[in-house]
Amino acid sequence: SSSSASMDELRAKFMEFPYVSAPHKDLMLELLSSVDNRIGSSLQPCTLPTDVQHFGNPTGTASASLHLRSGVVSSQIDFILGGWIHCKLPSGSSLNITSLSAYLKSSTNAPHFLMELIQSSPNSLILILDLTPRKDLILYLDYLKTYYEDTQLDKHRQRLHTLPEVTPYFSPSLYIRSVLSPTAVIVNIDIGAGEKTNIEEIIRDDIGPVAKEVLQFWLDSCACSERSVVGESEKCYLAERDRIIKSKTIEVDLGSSFPRLFGQEVADRVLSVLKEYYNA
Amino acid sequence: SSSSASMDELRAKFMEFPYVSAPHKDLMLELLSSVDNRIGSSLQPCTLPTDVQHFGNPTGTASASLHLRSGVVSSQIDFILGGWIHCKLPSGSSLNITSLSAYLKSSTNAPHFLMELIQSSPNSLILILDLTPRKDLILYLDYLKTYYEDTQLDKHRQRLHTLPEVTPYFSPSLYIRSVLSPTAVIVNIDIGAGEKTNIEEIIRDDIGPVAKEVLQFWLDSCACSERSVVGESEKCYLAERDRIIKSKTIEVDLGSSFPRLFGQEVADRVLSVLKEYYNA
Repeated sequence: SSSSASMDELRAKFMEFPYVSAPHKDLMLELLSSVDNRIGSSLQPCTLPTDVQHFGNPTGTASASLHLRSGVVSSQIDFILGGWIHCKLPSGSSLNITSLSAYLKSSTNAPHFLMELIQSSPNSLILILDLTPRKDLILYLDYLKTYYEDTQLDKHRQRLHTLPEVTPYFSPSLYIRSVLSPTAVIVNIDIGAGEKTNIEEIIRDDIGPVAKEVLQFWLDSCACSERSVVGESEKCYLAERDRIIKSKTIEVDLGSSFPRLFGQEVADRVLSVLKEYYNA
Repeated sequence: SSSSASMDELRAKFMEFPYVSAPHKDLMLELLSSVDNRIGSSLQPCTLPTDVQHFGNPTGTASASLHLRSGVVSSQIDFILGGWIHCKLPSGSSLNITSLSAYLKSSTNAPHFLMELIQSSPNSLILILDLTPRKDLILYLDYLKTYYEDTQLDKHRQRLHTLPEVTPYFSPSLYIRSVLSPTAVIVNIDIGAGEKTNIEEIIRDDIGPVAKEVLQFWLDSCACSERSVVGESEKCYLAERDRIIKSKTIEVDLGSSFPRLFGQEVADRVLSVLKEYYNA
């Protein structure tokens, strides 16, 4: 049908990552392919309306593609959202964001997955890569042990921090700082501080391997884990905490930038659809 | 009596901070004097046994003073612990730690106070300064707003991070990273990276003002706050979370280093007394 052709076109447009460098695009495609290989059969096709899968601002300086796939009923995956955002800046350079995030259902307590690459100049890049905790790590020290200590997740952060180009990044949002795990990679990468001569090299040699390893761990040990069958009261706890995480994340992450990037009308349309999924 | 004379001597020994630089000692004395001025009347005298107030290792290379004052029954203060630790290192230099921490009762939900200065070489220093959250900041976003966002606590961290000598410090303990607030100052200060020529200068000009301001805020708005009278279920929540914080903090912070510094026998004696207060 013409409708499914249009869906294929939209998926192709999403997979194009048209505004980022070749290593950046390759990384995103490799991550999406890992998702597909490992849990593709547990995911529905993207069900977003076509004008939410791809959209731009009225003046044509900003555009974006979103691809959201919900988990099938029997899976532990709530949904996976991939996307890219492009915006020409008044300075002449561009803002390019690519992201991949995944939320699990309250039938498991395993961490969510979060990755975001934010490039606002040719020589610098912000990377956020984390398995977001579902439980208060103080009240549930066993959770900290199981998912973060025993798994040695911190090694990925440590590896990136050996690069002279890498410095810690502090999100201006205290909520974002609070929601991340103690092993979160949240760094600024600045060319000029080290030996590598461009961001593409760092994406290929350093960010890529780390992102792929963290995602693979999440796919194997979180998205497909059998171990964390949770009881009713834990389920309620997870559902309530996830409800807050999702609504606050969409507010802080997209709610604040989308109106600025795409105008109020487009932002309202896209956000109202995403909120249905985030508050489901 | 001879016993109270001995108590005075032990207090004097604690207040001596004999192994740190003049600005470092001055800062500690100023902080202790702020505590005394603002909440001294709510605190009992130190009730630690004399051999826990001051002790050393058998070979005489390590010594320490601890000064712990419990809050009177009517106050919201559980206890305040000040201390210094000195240890000669095989390298020839010394390890010097000074600290001030304060825990509140579950009749208030206001944050605890934590400050630690760790100097293991003449040219570098680790500073930990925080108001430790009592509640999960995700499940209780209003708590994050009240104590961390509306108070602009992050400005202190930001101020220190403008110094070229300052870089973020990552505790090897994921528990320590998790227990701190998103506005925690947890930094490494290294001479050689900037314009200041010694650590003393940075303590006097930069760390001092920030530490005094954060402590004053804690004294005025947390230790003496009337606003946070909590209900029974919140009280239980706070009590349980505090119980975990205290027992884990003593395990990670002191339990791992004391046997190494002072030998097992002294460490056991001191820790068993402290545990009574920490688990109270």
